[in-house]
Amino acid sequence: MENGFTGKLLRVNLNTEKISVETLEKTFYRRYFGGRGLISYYLLKELEPKINPLGPENKLIFACGPVTGAPVSGSGRNSVGAKSPLTGAYGEAEAGGYWGAELKRAGFDAIIFEGKASSPVYLWIKDQKVELRDASRLWGHEIRKSQETIRNELGDKRVKVAQIGPGGEKQVRYACVINDMHHVAGRCGMGAVMGSKNLKAVAVKGSKSVPLRKPKRLAKLARWMAQNVDNVAHALHTYGTGDEMDVMVETGNLPIRNFRDGDFPEVDQISAETVKEQVRVGMGTCFACAVACKKKVKVTEPWNVYPEYGGPEYETLASMGSNCGVSDLKAICKANELCQRYSIDTISTGVTISFAMECYEHGLLTKEDTDGMDLSFGNAESMVKMVEMIGEKRGLGALLAEGTKRAAEQIGNGAEEFAVHVKGQEVPMHDPRLKRGEALGYAVSPTGADHVHNIHDTFLYPALPKKYNSLGVLEPVPLEDFGPKKVRLYKIVGEWRTLNNFLVMCLFTPWSVVQKVEIVRSVTGWNTTAFELMKVVERGNTLARIFNNREGFTEKDDWLPPRFFQPKTSGALDKTSVNPHELQKAKLLYYDMMGWTEKGIPKQSTLAELDIGWAADKISVQ
Amino acid sequence: MENGFTGKLLRVNLNTEKISVETLEKTFYRRYFGGRGLISYYLLKELEPKINPLGPENKLIFACGPVTGAPVSGSGRNSVGAKSPLTGAYGEAEAGGYWGAELKRAGFDAIIFEGKASSPVYLWIKDQKVELRDASRLWGHEIRKSQETIRNELGDKRVKVAQIGPGGEKQVRYACVINDMHHVAGRCGMGAVMGSKNLKAVAVKGSKSVPLRKPKRLAKLARWMAQNVDNVAHALHTYGTGDEMDVMVETGNLPIRNFRDGDFPEVDQISAETVKEQVRVGMGTCFACAVACKKKVKVTEPWNVYPEYGGPEYETLASMGSNCGVSDLKAICKANELCQRYSIDTISTGVTISFAMECYEHGLLTKEDTDGMDLSFGNAESMVKMVEMIGEKRGLGALLAEGTKRAAEQIGNGAEEFAVHVKGQEVPMHDPRLKRGEALGYAVSPTGADHVHNIHDTFLYPALPKKYNSLGVLEPVPLEDFGPKKVRLYKIVGEWRTLNNFLVMCLFTPWSVVQKVEIVRSVTGWNTTAFELMKVVERGNTLARIFNNREGFTEKDDWLPPRFFQPKTSGALDKTSVNPHELQKAKLLYYDMMGWTEKGIPKQSTLAELDIGWAADKISVQ
Repeated sequence: MENGFTGKLLRVNLNTEKISVETLEKTFYRRYFGGRGLISYYLLKELEPKINPLGPENKLIFACGPVTGAPVSGSGRNSVGAKSPLTGAYGEAEAGGYWGAELKRAGFDAIIFEGKASSPVYLWIKDQKVELRDASRLWGHEIRKSQETIRNELGDKRVKVAQIGPGGEKQVRYACVINDMHHVAGRCGMGAVMGSKNLKAVAVKGSKSVPLRKPKRLAKLARWMAQNVDNVAHALHTYGTGDEMDVMVETGNLPIRNFRDGDFPEVDQISAETVKEQVRVGMGTCFACAVACKKKVKVTEPWNVYPEYGGPEYETLASMGSNCGVSDLKAICKANELCQRYSIDTISTGVTISFAMECYEHGLLTKEDTDGMDLSFGNAESMVKMVEMIGEKRGLGALLAEGTKRAAEQIGNGAEEFAVHVKGQEVPMHDPRLKRGEALGYAVSPTGADHVHNIHDTFLYPALPKKYNSLGVLEPVPLEDFGPKKVRLYKIVGEWRTLNNFLVMCLFTPWSVVQKVEIVRSVTGWNTTAFELMKVVERGNTLARIFNNREGFTEKDDWLPPRFFQPKTSGALDKTSVNPHELQKAKLLYYDMMGWTEKGIPKQSTLAELDIGWAADKISVQ
Repeated sequence: MENGFTGKLLRVNLNTEKISVETLEKTFYRRYFGGRGLISYYLLKELEPKINPLGPENKLIFACGPVTGAPVSGSGRNSVGAKSPLTGAYGEAEAGGYWGAELKRAGFDAIIFEGKASSPVYLWIKDQKVELRDASRLWGHEIRKSQETIRNELGDKRVKVAQIGPGGEKQVRYACVINDMHHVAGRCGMGAVMGSKNLKAVAVKGSKSVPLRKPKRLAKLARWMAQNVDNVAHALHTYGTGDEMDVMVETGNLPIRNFRDGDFPEVDQISAETVKEQVRVGMGTCFACAVACKKKVKVTEPWNVYPEYGGPEYETLASMGSNCGVSDLKAICKANELCQRYSIDTISTGVTISFAMECYEHGLLTKEDTDGMDLSFGNAESMVKMVEMIGEKRGLGALLAEGTKRAAEQIGNGAEEFAVHVKGQEVPMHDPRLKRGEALGYAVSPTGADHVHNIHDTFLYPALPKKYNSLGVLEPVPLEDFGPKKVRLYKIVGEWRTLNNFLVMCLFTPWSVVQKVEIVRSVTGWNTTAFELMKVVERGNTLARIFNNREGFTEKDDWLPPRFFQPKTSGALDKTSVNPHELQKAKLLYYDMMGWTEKGIPKQSTLAELDIGWAADKISVQ
């Protein structure tokens, strides 16, 4: 194992059960490292165009990053990638926890799954010993049970398990992959791809330690975070995500009743402060992380919610809560737990339910469709019930398991008006009517509406965090400003934040730019710079763009759902909405900055500058 | 004085004799720092389009960089900028020595001279005390005498003097500005602009020390260079520039007889090794520099050459030597000394003479033009004589003082074939028929043929120096390769090297990328990165591009002289030349990478990304 990477990629053909190990060259890895780097490279190189994402031709990639498993906050993550069954586009999601570090300690940077097993299997990796094992008796089990079974079978309680529950098995289009029962690679439906391959789980035990090039320097950085975490990440450390949701109502950022309304007086009942007071029984963390932002909640009535499934993040508090009009915290906790049990994404699940609620309100869905259930906004019990029905693809749940885009098409009669998605991916809990950078980011992200690759203008205004000044003299730009300065900010800060998807590091560990470069250097020994790292991001983003282009996506798909072109019905944003002309202009400016044509297609000069000339013949002429 | 800059810009109006001090804001300086950053900003903002570069409307800027005067190798330089009388384009040159550090220690980052003095003057800066003084009795004096006079007048032998000799006074179009009698801001005719303003010299004495943000860290870097200089800069430290010129004949790089021929068996007589053996009396250095690459030579017959004027660099050994067919080292040393005395650029002087020699050989110039002198290639005495005549603008010298481009136009009859210049600036001593990166660099540099902004492919092939790997995984590209990989290498490595023109640091101090960023951080306290620094380079290059665009330069001016589209008559390059189609293709690819149109005009998106939207209305629509 080298500093920064193992140099080994595991390839598992589920058709033939052939398992092989391929070598990753150092110069290759430095160009295409980690999550999006490696995943975009392999998906573009190895997938045939226009394949069925739920067919055996799709490939599912688990990947670590160059710093994964190093003893420093933010390094415990892993990426999962495939062509997305939700969007039909480039798909990728990241999870925290310990699984990524474990895979690295077993001696692998990544795993590519190909084909489809004839019956359910799971993969067992014990260092370099790798085998496919029968998972027939696990199939249909929710994740707690299957993790227990696997650990018992392998005789080791410390085995790390990434897996799917019944939602993944049944190929809910936004099914996720879960590690350790509560660390979730949530978006893009990676769990559905896993299910389509009859792959229940990947269990890993590694015994190597990750070699570090400059262990003392890294230890110094790790110590700094441990000592300063309460200053630099106070809220996360204390509450996890979801504090000050009352402020979000005031500013208009909080999605309420399917992104429609602006008032939610019950907000204090669902915030992270209330979680802490009422249902939290502890905090969890990820590998080597001092921030420790993961909630564990326990509820005993009217539902049992087990702490092993973690607790609701902000995205979940909002998507299952305010965005469904629900203020019952226990119901939200239960919905969150059910999403884990079934392995379905809480954002897409919540937004799909809020979509259905709005359809119900307009009579596009009736009690006939809901098996008599009242699906009004605010009905907590129905919300919880719907999660279950989606996870099981039962009744209306089967339709909603297809996601808002497909469900709206089927329902018809203008239901599309209520489907809040980009490229088929449901919009997360940040309102672009408040923040124009967010609007652009949702529109152009290769994975559809995605908050992780985004800039969250509210974090950059009125004061821009000092750490970003390492990327140039950047000025804060007002939230509603959609001019060139906002686009520049999106390009620079957005790319820096997206670097986390390449390093497979966490967005929530507040390393400065300089510190993060230093971490990469200390672990890998690469004499790298922010310049090189930013180019790696441009490279990966461009490859993902080409992937989508080949799948038939055009500039028209870089757009927002109708909802955001109207103001909210009340509250702070009752008079403001995204101006489509401004969005179009910003989008074209962004394309140009990226070296893409006005149709959004990467130019030859861009490929040349990024040293990916090989990708030229993957671009379809349009 | 802040870390990294004084925040003070001195503005001297020579018409009114008004001297004022302006404030440079920190965020401004970080965006437009040092040499090209500041100069391109002010020239574009303050000059009217199409002014006469030798008229009072031109402005002459002396500038330090953010690390100037810090005690570390490479920090003793200064930039000089103005609209160039040689090219009519953006003009800028850099000099080593002590003058830049002295200006910083006096408390100024830059000086802008405006207008024209009614009679000769010099500027005297003693810390914040600044005055214009009469220079009538200095006018016409060569530099040694005028430096002595100034120092005596000011009663301080340690005063640093940047000045012009008679060549600058008479406005030889490639006159230079000289500090300490042998540190030369050579290119673009900055000395002619100085002469046109009746400005003889700028004398400086500073007493402040330059504040450092992290003095210990900087001291560690300085110590590293002191201890390792003999490894990392062995040849420069031992010989200065110009060693192994025999290898240059073998590869074809050495210009011989106006870039025409490939054989020069006498090469060993003019190399830096021979300089060391035969005429060198010591080595000099610049402020705080451990490399110490400056030769001092002494000759007593047939000419006296005084060591105070330094000694010939490689560029001079070749331009006055092989490129004039001259193998008489003493003659070259004398020619070098004369260039200093008159303050004319040795490269342009040598190439103009070699041009005249070829014209003479073809009968386009005859003894009638030369006052009976035999101007054949190889005539050392005539070469020396011509330097004098150019410096004095006497006889044929008056024509040649206009530079090859104008001289060729006047001579006519096909003389243009022999004029080896780009945009009017004579080509330095590196042959683009050997190195395609060099070809592109000559063509697109805003200052015309310039070797300092260039990549010198031979330094990057067959092995690419490890230090550049901090800018990404870069592969060595064969010298003659003119494909996308070469263009990429030119863009990335070229921009990194051009950063020296912004930091006003030396190309010859072999700092790694990581070390150089660290130096900037240690001096300035900016939490900067290579990403930010590279963007500053793109910004300045784009402003210089817009400057030239406004002056009427088009993509057609980004081209090479006819000579390089033909092979050499003999030697290594007798069958190879620059392919114009390849050059055109590479040029367009480079434009595209820069975010310029195919006409070479920076696009709005490029201005937006570089945060120079203000420059949009400086672009002339063509």
